Amino acid sequence: MEYDLAITNGLIVTCNDDFEIIEFGRILVKDGNIAVIDSNTSNIKTAKEIDAKGCIVMPGLINAHTHLPMSMFRGLADDLPLMEWLNEHIFPAESKFIDPAFVQIGTRLSIAETLLSGTTTICDGYFLEEYIAQAVNETGIRAVLAQGVIDFPAPGVPDPAKNIEHALDYIHKIQNKYPLITPSIFCHSPASCSEKAFINAKEAASSLGLILQTHFSETKSEFMQIKEETGKRPAEYLDSIGVLDEKTLLVHSVWLEDKEISIVKESGCSIVHNPESNMKLGSGIAPVPKYLNAGITTALGTDGCASNNDLDMFCEMDSAAKIHKAATLDPSVTTAEAILKMATIDGARAIGLGDVTGSLQVGKAADIVVVDIRKPHLVPMYNPVSHIVYSVKGSDVKHVVINGQHAVDNGKCLTVDVESAIDDALTMGEKIMESKN
Amino acid sequence: MEYDLAITNGLIVTCNDDFEIIEFGRILVKDGNIAVIDSNTSNIKTAKEIDAKGCIVMPGLINAHTHLPMSMFRGLADDLPLMEWLNEHIFPAESKFIDPAFVQIGTRLSIAETLLSGTTTICDGYFLEEYIAQAVNETGIRAVLAQGVIDFPAPGVPDPAKNIEHALDYIHKIQNKYPLITPSIFCHSPASCSEKAFINAKEAASSLGLILQTHFSETKSEFMQIKEETGKRPAEYLDSIGVLDEKTLLVHSVWLEDKEISIVKESGCSIVHNPESNMKLGSGIAPVPKYLNAGITTALGTDGCASNNDLDMFCEMDSAAKIHKAATLDPSVTTAEAILKMATIDGARAIGLGDVTGSLQVGKAADIVVVDIRKPHLVPMYNPVSHIVYSVKGSDVKHVVINGQHAVDNGKCLTVDVESAIDDALTMGEKIMESKN
Repeated sequence: MEYDLAITNGLIVTCNDDFEIIEFGRILVKDGNIAVIDSNTSNIKTAKEIDAKGCIVMPGLINAHTHLPMSMFRGLADDLPLMEWLNEHIFPAESKFIDPAFVQIGTRLSIAETLLSGTTTICDGYFLEEYIAQAVNETGIRAVLAQGVIDFPAPGVPDPAKNIEHALDYIHKIQNKYPLITPSIFCHSPASCSEKAFINAKEAASSLGLILQTHFSETKSEFMQIKEETGKRPAEYLDSIGVLDEKTLLVHSVWLEDKEISIVKESGCSIVHNPESNMKLGSGIAPVPKYLNAGITTALGTDGCASNNDLDMFCEMDSAAKIHKAATLDPSVTTAEAILKMATIDGARAIGLGDVTGSLQVGKAADIVVVDIRKPHLVPMYNPVSHIVYSVKGSDVKHVVINGQHAVDNGKCLTVDVESAIDDALTMGEKIMESKN
Repeated sequence: MEYDLAITNGLIVTCNDDFEIIEFGRILVKDGNIAVIDSNTSNIKTAKEIDAKGCIVMPGLINAHTHLPMSMFRGLADDLPLMEWLNEHIFPAESKFIDPAFVQIGTRLSIAETLLSGTTTICDGYFLEEYIAQAVNETGIRAVLAQGVIDFPAPGVPDPAKNIEHALDYIHKIQNKYPLITPSIFCHSPASCSEKAFINAKEAASSLGLILQTHFSETKSEFMQIKEETGKRPAEYLDSIGVLDEKTLLVHSVWLEDKEISIVKESGCSIVHNPESNMKLGSGIAPVPKYLNAGITTALGTDGCASNNDLDMFCEMDSAAKIHKAATLDPSVTTAEAILKMATIDGARAIGLGDVTGSLQVGKAADIVVVDIRKPHLVPMYNPVSHIVYSVKGSDVKHVVINGQHAVDNGKCLTVDVESAIDDALTMGEKIMESKN
């Protein structure tokens, strides 16, 4: 048998159920999938070989929550509360600039950063998502891309009464069109979407077997608002209208009370933790150790990089591992292994791709990252999982393979024209800057 | 007049008193110092020129607290409480391995990482410090290097009764020997040094005009212990024995009560904040916004990279900016500008080098970093200070100049043989790994 690709000689951190680590390991890829993982060194015919000697070989990271076009707003406004940041800076900039060309420029820029820093799957929610899907498809990254639903006029959806119709239209347009892209629906939040919108969005997503996502209890005031308006805690409310199940993704989930954690666990839905965005916006510290103890599938995301301000999932792991130790005064509540699972296999499960990606296992897609550890900040190495979470940065990524295709080769992105992505972003950035002044 | 070096065309973030930013700026260097900063583009004779077009030019960062040799223990033990981490992993490894060769191997490794990530001044505390000084001197970095004092047998100081004598001996050996190194004394902590040791150490440091440093109220249990043993809160205790003044550096300062904050402010001493280490060890979140409001000079440090696990001051700024927003639920408590000051000019002031470095000003030493921002994660740029704190990583550093000498050129370290530093660390790491198994 001839294989398409061999990745040889690396230290393989599989993230499989036994969290197996294979020294001097070999991965053979055929038709986009992992065909063999072993430590055999016999000669094998392959079309291509990546020598990973002295490198960590690991699953591509899963960024389970972002807003790709928002890289265009990175650093536009900082050090402000969520509502002021949104209402006085981000929403006005969005209403002024968002159009199909804009979202594609921001998306290409974000995907370049994403690929170069070792993320192979992203889960996005925004408006004009069909144009984002077009741009994403060209980059070869794996993605769950959700059309936004909000009960206000939004880019591409001037009439909010038609927001579900738009979402369904989007899904029909892109489903099965792009091999690595799965559509989804993103309700902006229980505070900005009516009960009816939530119920209809969930029904639409369920009928097609797709994930429904929503920002959820991001701030204390949002928690209070929902409790006041519905007489129920936010998780009780969403549960009562039937939108919580194993295909629902609760993004942020900073302010859940213990009773709500049980509801979330019972329902089978997943949580996406975005520690850096929650920190930067002063939203709070999600009780993630409780989610992990309850056995809730918990993923990790960067959020849009206007509130982060980057898309580096290695750094996000570092923050996720540390923040809960500080909050609980217990350094054992979040181990490096638990955090790496959030950024890999549990992230894949949360977004409905647990059978496809998130770990290095025979039969899964070849979504693989090779990290160069011959650097002053990465030697010596006593524990590769500690290194991945606490010491490796996105800039240490040497190779990225997605669905068997080489996307980053020796630190160079093969699937995005990075120079033109930068130039386009700079030109658009000048216009945004002018309008700000 | 002929200059030694020109850095031209960059966006200069001066960190001077007015926090001036100069577009298309020029810095001319003569005899190690900044001779000119302007935006003049006329031709000038210089021995060397760095074209910083499309780059940020900023002061070299000040890492105000670290333990250089501990890079050898990075990832040796994680996710453990401070005392278990220290007593069961770090102290045993130290007692087994620390000797002059070991501390020099770890130091060279740490300085390579430090230089490559844009830090031009470090403040260290460890044992066998004369050997560290030797290795540091060869790298061309600016440093305050403190000999440790502890009331237990320590590497190089088998008899704790002679710990002050050793410190004085160290100071006499290295003072005025190395042009960019200032000696200092480091009392390990009020819990591990007697009142007498503190008083003698302070007297020795004061008599020579040097800084006295100590770990201070790092954990709640340390706070409680001192209160129980002395009947005073830790800051009250140190104040009562006369060791707090403008040449004292209180490292960590996580658990200060309001009354202690006033004492620290009154005394004129400085604080070093190490957010990532405090988070990782579950020590807590220092009330830094209170320190800033009180007008206490507050510096930033990484701590030893066994508890971090890196020496990247850009990432440390990012963490410092975010953690207090999360803790207070107020995103305005730590602005990007305030954090950048901590990592530059206030760091320099805290370690006694405020007149020498920490900002780009005529007459100060030419300690300069050039950051490449033509990267997907750094375009467009609306605010360079936001970028520096929230988006730039150490790996974006292109050039480093220290005291007018080019130390990093296009991402390549000129003053440390990085390959042999890595090889030495790997060889030593194997021995440590073997002893662990």
